[in-house]
Amino acid sequence: MSDMLPPGSVIGILGGGQLGRMLSVAAARLGYRTHVYEPSANPPATHVAEKVVTAPYEDAAALRAFAEGVDVITYEFENVPTAALDLLESLRPIRPNRRALAVSQDRILEKDFLSGIGLTTAPYAAVDDEATLDEALAHIGAPAILKTTRLGYDGKGQARIMDRSEAPAALAEMRGAPAVLEGFVTFTREVSVIAARGLTGEVAAYDPGENVHLGGILSTTTVPATLSASERTDAVLLAARILNALDYVGVMGVELFVTPGGLVVNEIAPRVHNSGHWTQNGCAVDQFEQHIRAVAGWPLGDGSRHADVVMENLIGDDVLKVPAIARETNAAIHLYGKAEARPGRKMGHVNRVRKPA
Amino acid sequence: MSDMLPPGSVIGILGGGQLGRMLSVAAARLGYRTHVYEPSANPPATHVAEKVVTAPYEDAAALRAFAEGVDVITYEFENVPTAALDLLESLRPIRPNRRALAVSQDRILEKDFLSGIGLTTAPYAAVDDEATLDEALAHIGAPAILKTTRLGYDGKGQARIMDRSEAPAALAEMRGAPAVLEGFVTFTREVSVIAARGLTGEVAAYDPGENVHLGGILSTTTVPATLSASERTDAVLLAARILNALDYVGVMGVELFVTPGGLVVNEIAPRVHNSGHWTQNGCAVDQFEQHIRAVAGWPLGDGSRHADVVMENLIGDDVLKVPAIARETNAAIHLYGKAEARPGRKMGHVNRVRKPA
Repeated sequence: MSDMLPPGSVIGILGGGQLGRMLSVAAARLGYRTHVYEPSANPPATHVAEKVVTAPYEDAAALRAFAEGVDVITYEFENVPTAALDLLESLRPIRPNRRALAVSQDRILEKDFLSGIGLTTAPYAAVDDEATLDEALAHIGAPAILKTTRLGYDGKGQARIMDRSEAPAALAEMRGAPAVLEGFVTFTREVSVIAARGLTGEVAAYDPGENVHLGGILSTTTVPATLSASERTDAVLLAARILNALDYVGVMGVELFVTPGGLVVNEIAPRVHNSGHWTQNGCAVDQFEQHIRAVAGWPLGDGSRHADVVMENLIGDDVLKVPAIARETNAAIHLYGKAEARPGRKMGHVNRVRKPA
Repeated sequence: MSDMLPPGSVIGILGGGQLGRMLSVAAARLGYRTHVYEPSANPPATHVAEKVVTAPYEDAAALRAFAEGVDVITYEFENVPTAALDLLESLRPIRPNRRALAVSQDRILEKDFLSGIGLTTAPYAAVDDEATLDEALAHIGAPAILKTTRLGYDGKGQARIMDRSEAPAALAEMRGAPAVLEGFVTFTREVSVIAARGLTGEVAAYDPGENVHLGGILSTTTVPATLSASERTDAVLLAARILNALDYVGVMGVELFVTPGGLVVNEIAPRVHNSGHWTQNGCAVDQFEQHIRAVAGWPLGDGSRHADVVMENLIGDDVLKVPAIARETNAAIHLYGKAEARPGRKMGHVNRVRKPA
């Protein structure tokens, strides 16, 4: 029990979106309080957190006061500015650690790290200008994808190059930001592993989920994924290798491509992950509680799956389907309390559950 | 969809204990905000509700402001003073309705109501003084239990009379409050049915749970309960009859004694109920969400059970077992965020889940 955060302690969460909201609820269930730091007003976590600080990441006084009011700090997204993290880390432990954040914030660092521990990624090369892009295309070939090395999510900051003639337009889309050219990976499916590592180094992984993206945004995750037994084992071992190499504490999402030649790591997210939402209705301990357990020094929960689940994101106007979904049997609805349903905005999700055959 | 409370609406909850806390979380999951009204400071719901009003039920201005800030009002306990309810009801709908509250607030009204719709209760008689107690004992016999007609819970306000010589002491324990003498029911087990009725009159019931009380406080609930098929059906039909007779909207807990002669209704609670906590880890839609669905005019959720569950209350120092329970597989822990573990105080519960055989 020595390392377990005492009941009633406060967990600070950087970011107040739906992930922060669901982390707050999980923390409450384990007897903790949460304070959320979020630059934008009235974020989803507001409704379920004990306290929300609305301030930019450049406000040192607000960051300091936030840190002093909490016992440990975690985050729901990976793009917190470095200076803010430096200040926060001087005051309270940040879990997962800075290295995991640094690696995941930069696509080149990430791929270098993954390659360095013996994992397979898409072929990649750094691109700063026309000359390096030409060189990268000569090496990697087309089709390929040019991405900003930092701050990309949900398909933003990306440009496909189907033919070398499209290179100048793609480069222009980067708006001068450092970029990386990634070769196309021919995959049969996309899966992700949601894995956790505790304060004492134990690792637990959920059954891999099979993901379908539409327009660059996750649409559905299905468990069980269509994987061979050896692919399933590889996926979990590979995730464990990543967590151990980073001395990671918390939940991580690891996105993988399944190819005839084996598993290729697409990207890692040092946080709870949209493709792990199915665990809310398929496991005794879901990814949000698992993350809080790790961050609070608890033993990890049992991640075994007691049901088959299809998670579907409710994006934009999809939320209008809620009254119909509410009539389905075995459909668990999770809404994020967002006032306005803009196109592409994640409004909630539904977990459709059935017992394993 | 017409009757469904719009997303972002505010549900007012009277009472901020653990039931209010878990209702707040369920409301958030369905996209609603919650305001909690609670006389005592820093109640468990504080950590997960958007707003908590700390004021006594005699504060008309606070009640009025609370009602004006919400769209519908529900409650987590049944002893809200009548004057407060009168004021609140003049401003916003209260669900479940006042009749359900009135009936459950008074043990004699409750038993009159239950008998009136053809259900079996323990033999009972009103007791105001020594003379009526003598008369009641002559009619019902000893052993029997004397209970205050109002404001009893968790074994408080009750005195056993094993022999008529104990009558004066038992009467003294009532401290002059109106009381009811209830005959002992010889039962083989105690079960409860958690049932719900929606705004359009549909009824859904969870599988009955088998309860074990220790020292007048619920200790464990086990599903499935040991019941014959006909007892199981009777239990559910009987609960439905109660809900329909009250034109009820929301979740109700119906406690039953199983006797060789059939089911005897012990008492009803017009709210989510401790013996329904197992639904959090045994059903796609738990009792808290089911209550919010009813109150918010949603279709009721599917209450079918996908797992066997034993719910154990963590009372007082039981909470010290949490680190050990955290290492169990298939144990879902729910803590209430209470700072101090006093004897008899419900600190949390654990749902131990296994797949049905």
